[in-house]
Amino acid sequence: MKPTRVLIIGGGFGGVYTAITLEKHLKANDNVEVGLISKENYLVFQPMLPEVISGSIGILDTIAPIRRLCPKTNLYTREVESIDLKNKRVMTSAGFRPQTSQLEYDHLVIAVGNITSFSAQRGLAEHALPFKYLGDGLVLRNHVIRALEEADIESDSEFRRALLTFVVAGGGFSGVEAVAELNDFVRHAARSFRRINRAEIRVILLHAGPLILPELSENLGQFAQKLLQRRGVEIRLNTRLAGATGESALLDNGERVLTKTLVSTVPSAPNPLVASLPCKKEKGRIVVNKHLEVVDYPGVWAVGDCAWVVDHKTWQPCPPTAQHATRQAACLAKNLIASLRQEPKQAFSFEALGKLAALGHRSAVAEVFGVKLSGFVAWLLWRTIYLMKLPGLDRKLRVSTDWFLDLLLPPDIVQLKLDKTTSVIREHFEPHEIIFRQGDRGDRLYVIVEGEVELFQEGPDQVPHLLGRLGPGECFGEMALVNDKPRMATARSIARTNLLSVDQHAFGALFAYHPPLRRMFEALIDERRRSTAR
Amino acid sequence: MKPTRVLIIGGGFGGVYTAITLEKHLKANDNVEVGLISKENYLVFQPMLPEVISGSIGILDTIAPIRRLCPKTNLYTREVESIDLKNKRVMTSAGFRPQTSQLEYDHLVIAVGNITSFSAQRGLAEHALPFKYLGDGLVLRNHVIRALEEADIESDSEFRRALLTFVVAGGGFSGVEAVAELNDFVRHAARSFRRINRAEIRVILLHAGPLILPELSENLGQFAQKLLQRRGVEIRLNTRLAGATGESALLDNGERVLTKTLVSTVPSAPNPLVASLPCKKEKGRIVVNKHLEVVDYPGVWAVGDCAWVVDHKTWQPCPPTAQHATRQAACLAKNLIASLRQEPKQAFSFEALGKLAALGHRSAVAEVFGVKLSGFVAWLLWRTIYLMKLPGLDRKLRVSTDWFLDLLLPPDIVQLKLDKTTSVIREHFEPHEIIFRQGDRGDRLYVIVEGEVELFQEGPDQVPHLLGRLGPGECFGEMALVNDKPRMATARSIARTNLLSVDQHAFGALFAYHPPLRRMFEALIDERRRSTAR
Repeated sequence: MKPTRVLIIGGGFGGVYTAITLEKHLKANDNVEVGLISKENYLVFQPMLPEVISGSIGILDTIAPIRRLCPKTNLYTREVESIDLKNKRVMTSAGFRPQTSQLEYDHLVIAVGNITSFSAQRGLAEHALPFKYLGDGLVLRNHVIRALEEADIESDSEFRRALLTFVVAGGGFSGVEAVAELNDFVRHAARSFRRINRAEIRVILLHAGPLILPELSENLGQFAQKLLQRRGVEIRLNTRLAGATGESALLDNGERVLTKTLVSTVPSAPNPLVASLPCKKEKGRIVVNKHLEVVDYPGVWAVGDCAWVVDHKTWQPCPPTAQHATRQAACLAKNLIASLRQEPKQAFSFEALGKLAALGHRSAVAEVFGVKLSGFVAWLLWRTIYLMKLPGLDRKLRVSTDWFLDLLLPPDIVQLKLDKTTSVIREHFEPHEIIFRQGDRGDRLYVIVEGEVELFQEGPDQVPHLLGRLGPGECFGEMALVNDKPRMATARSIARTNLLSVDQHAFGALFAYHPPLRRMFEALIDERRRSTAR
Repeated sequence: MKPTRVLIIGGGFGGVYTAITLEKHLKANDNVEVGLISKENYLVFQPMLPEVISGSIGILDTIAPIRRLCPKTNLYTREVESIDLKNKRVMTSAGFRPQTSQLEYDHLVIAVGNITSFSAQRGLAEHALPFKYLGDGLVLRNHVIRALEEADIESDSEFRRALLTFVVAGGGFSGVEAVAELNDFVRHAARSFRRINRAEIRVILLHAGPLILPELSENLGQFAQKLLQRRGVEIRLNTRLAGATGESALLDNGERVLTKTLVSTVPSAPNPLVASLPCKKEKGRIVVNKHLEVVDYPGVWAVGDCAWVVDHKTWQPCPPTAQHATRQAACLAKNLIASLRQEPKQAFSFEALGKLAALGHRSAVAEVFGVKLSGFVAWLLWRTIYLMKLPGLDRKLRVSTDWFLDLLLPPDIVQLKLDKTTSVIREHFEPHEIIFRQGDRGDRLYVIVEGEVELFQEGPDQVPHLLGRLGPGECFGEMALVNDKPRMATARSIARTNLLSVDQHAFGALFAYHPPLRRMFEALIDERRRSTAR
């Protein structure tokens, strides 16, 4: 007899704990085959992610290999491209070979979570660092060390201050935990940089409301706020991030904070996969019944941040937390098995046990079973609880060791250059910003997506002459790439401008080997030369 | 009084140990300012690099922050662009801002090492994985895990075998140590992949000579060879790597080994910075006198792999090893101080203490003070010596802990997707290789750099019709990118072909926002459509 195929989509808490619970309760004579599709082959333990910034937990120790957590599940390390509820199949992305593949199911569990989306504010997608996935933690850590490295040898004092200013937007749980770790790390690490004046370091937390940590009760929020301020974090309350450029964070009061490091933890948006589904949704999340079944689609289930789960007892929608996702997953898995065995299903209800926020350097705030704690005791509780929750014995051992060594050793300041600079990137400029200066090294070609740019040249008389204005679809900066000479003009944005830029390497390769493209740019350069000469 | 400026170029053993020794022996009244330019802000401890592949040492633990090793030295984390011996200055690359900077010196120490260069063999630069820097170790580790992930869900048996074949070229020290760790890791990690048949795993070592480890005496080489073979490594003696494609390793006997993982440890070439210097060279290395001063350039010194150092006692040139580099650095630093104080300098001489090669899984071979050891005793010696040599107490503690945990825990199989796929890459094809197939997902546009490509289409009659042949400068594959439809034809190389390919993301962005480019491709696509319709 063909086995019943259960397919889970998503490698977060919801998906992985569904697989774990299924493995635990399924018996051989249920004849069920479980598959799980996940973009990564590991589960990220989010609560410990901020400690990746400071390096107090080893990079790999906050993540657990999914294969070890649910060894009887077939893991597909793939991205999901589309879900076909009608024909009961899921299309996944290509691997080494450029071919998509298709997986069929009898039962489908949707646990795809939500995504980070910066699209609402200008310049954020281009210039803000997100903080949600493991990769984000690593990128941020290396970016911060790079900023310190640059500040150490920078002679221009304004630019050095921008390098030493670190801005975190969002005063909820993840923002507060991130700023606490970032602040501890930057101030401690800076001691190893002999030309950095530590008084120049600024760490700023932007928060839209009147008090940080709105998830907790007021006095805990106040405790956290005072503690962070005492440690040197500037907290800007009732202030929102309105946008960003390569050089600054733009606040909603019109102020511009010069910085090279802007972290934004706020925006999360519905997963496009969920948006594409025909089923009923509430605030972008999939509506499920009390058994966690998707309404009108028998055999389809949803769990975690992508699901709209109403608590059976309180009639309140569940918040998107790991606590809820794991409990929902356990309930879902049992109901799924019950439906296969035609047994009665249970309704989902769960009261959160507590909330904890780490504040770095042996301090935390906690609200557990109605008891409020702060400081060292809360920190001990934080570490105990999360160490218990961390999946896998090997990770528990590794993290305990990390914490022990962290007591003895200074923070790590090695900068891993992991991210190859991608050849084509987008950049955002506010009006009247310099894109490049005459005399700079020419390392990129720019195409205007929207906005307007003016080019001017300073002659020997030091008077700038306007060379021209360019609009959408036009390109500039190609001359320095072809000649390998410094920029012959300065480019400045007139309006708010979005640019696409291509680096020297990609441009050079294409230019050299694709004659039509070369001819196109040669014609363009000729034209520019003639208009400059005039 | 202005201090004497000593500038060291290079953050390897030679450069860093020069700085360390200078700091140790310089006194305040010498009035010397030491600067060090290094591409990375850490020193890589090469001997432990192979263990990064298996994850038995944490990623960051084999590297030590240079700032902590020589805290009184000004570190410039920069690449060197050029050295101007005449005007005594060094130009460094740009940081966040596109401006180069210039450093002046009174004494210059050149310690830039050599570089990996795959240019001699076709396809290697495009498709082989190097193994020299920390980044290489990480990339290799993640690539191997990705290959296992893909093999686990691959249904095509030929392609699965290619995914499970791992080839290492070069049977010297670094090749043998790499293949030993790789073999241990792959075979152990595969246990967590439920659909991988471990009998299908092949790990192959290519070696040009008749016996591996030619640096050691014959019986140790034989011991190592037998041990590796017993653990499942296929050793191909008297066999060289002749080239590579995306799908295979090409051997010098004409054989093609299908593989997706080819590691090459062999090629090292003189650093282009050294090549650009006007001073006297021998085999691409800078000739220095017995005091390690560069001949004809007073105040310029050279050390390590980039220097041609002749031992004062044996009259033999020094081999490019860390042992020699650190001793040379100590001698150089003392001579530099002696020359400042106008004291007599010492001549360099050093006899290597021994050679050790780790073979993974508690075995090694060693030749120390003339004594030959193999197996477990040699392995203990290996670990003891290298732990002692590892710079920095904190690293010693971290690596000891790693080794202890490694005894208890299974190898880590999380795959970090660190490398963003770069938008423009080069690919090599041998004659008659498929570049893409009709029906594949169209994810790249190709430009022919050299060679020839034919395109053919299979009609409903399943007979392939030739659409055309293309040569250098022409491009193909643009249609699927514009339409977002599967490939409408199959592309195959006729001759040896080098291609440049641009990914969908970069192409789409440029195509959408740069009208001249869009018009160019629209014209091209129109022409293709007409010729296909005919």
